[in-house]
Amino acid sequence: MKNLMIFLFLAASFLSAAQASEIVPPSPNGIEFPKNYKDWRLVSTSHRLDNSTLRVIVGNDKAIEAVRSNNINPWPDGAILGKMVWKEATMLSWEKAVVPGEFVHVEFMEKDSKKYPSTGGWGFARWKGMELKPYGQNESFVFECFGCHTPVKESDYVFTHTSTMP
Amino acid sequence: MKNLMIFLFLAASFLSAAQASEIVPPSPNGIEFPKNYKDWRLVSTSHRLDNSTLRVIVGNDKAIEAVRSNNINPWPDGAILGKMVWKEATMLSWEKAVVPGEFVHVEFMEKDSKKYPSTGGWGFARWKGMELKPYGQNESFVFECFGCHTPVKESDYVFTHTSTMP
Repeated sequence: MKNLMIFLFLAASFLSAAQASEIVPPSPNGIEFPKNYKDWRLVSTSHRLDNSTLRVIVGNDKAIEAVRSNNINPWPDGAILGKMVWKEATMLSWEKAVVPGEFVHVEFMEKDSKKYPSTGGWGFARWKGMELKPYGQNESFVFECFGCHTPVKESDYVFTHTSTMP
Repeated sequence: MKNLMIFLFLAASFLSAAQASEIVPPSPNGIEFPKNYKDWRLVSTSHRLDNSTLRVIVGNDKAIEAVRSNNINPWPDGAILGKMVWKEATMLSWEKAVVPGEFVHVEFMEKDSKKYPSTGGWGFARWKGMELKPYGQNESFVFECFGCHTPVKESDYVFTHTSTMP
């Protein structure tokens, strides 16, 4: 009986730990965390000097298809852009190279013109830090995102320009 | 008959243009251009202040598997790292952001400890510009690559540190 109890306790602990690393809470506006974003393909990169961060922008299959067929103004429904942000750091082996340091957050723009009419057809979401804490106290956080993206309405509210790659 | 000639001429021209964009000459050391590198997944990014370029480093499946299982010192045979390089440009809609401008080149390191014993187990190759012109007059160009990478022997001759991503 004691052995069975120990076994059940260990099994429960193992399951709990395994699940914890899998579970990322949704954004307050209901957008689920895209678990496979690390497998998405490259759209571009940037180095923001105003807040000392490096960024890489990736896209889901629909977004990459749109990039490669030059069909990104407007972006098609179903396209999702993901942006990973890191604090800048110095490469020790090449001191004139700025490289990603501490991970800051990952954020997404999901195009669905029917679902998100009040924010330019885009759903916004962000998860902070290595613990992927959802950004925003409630769903109104999206107006902060949209406010910042409004000046680039002419490029369908997207700052990122796709990088040229042969 | 005249119409047939015109048709054949147009068909031949079309075929020729289509094939030209597909054919990339191999590197002088025999390494073939990895045509699908734009589909590879992210390893890291960097901004080199000494030569004003932005870079994104991607890896083939074998390389990404090695990154995710923390098995990169040494990197396993079969891993290929690709690095895209652009001149820096200013994002017009956010002037404090440095973004990729003109494409400079794409370069690769291919790990095969049996094939490349004289250059740390790595095969080097680079293709320049949008026309993807192979770098190097002859196969001895690899000693230029290897010379620059020798100071980072401790990290298996690789400068890139993998970015932290949750």
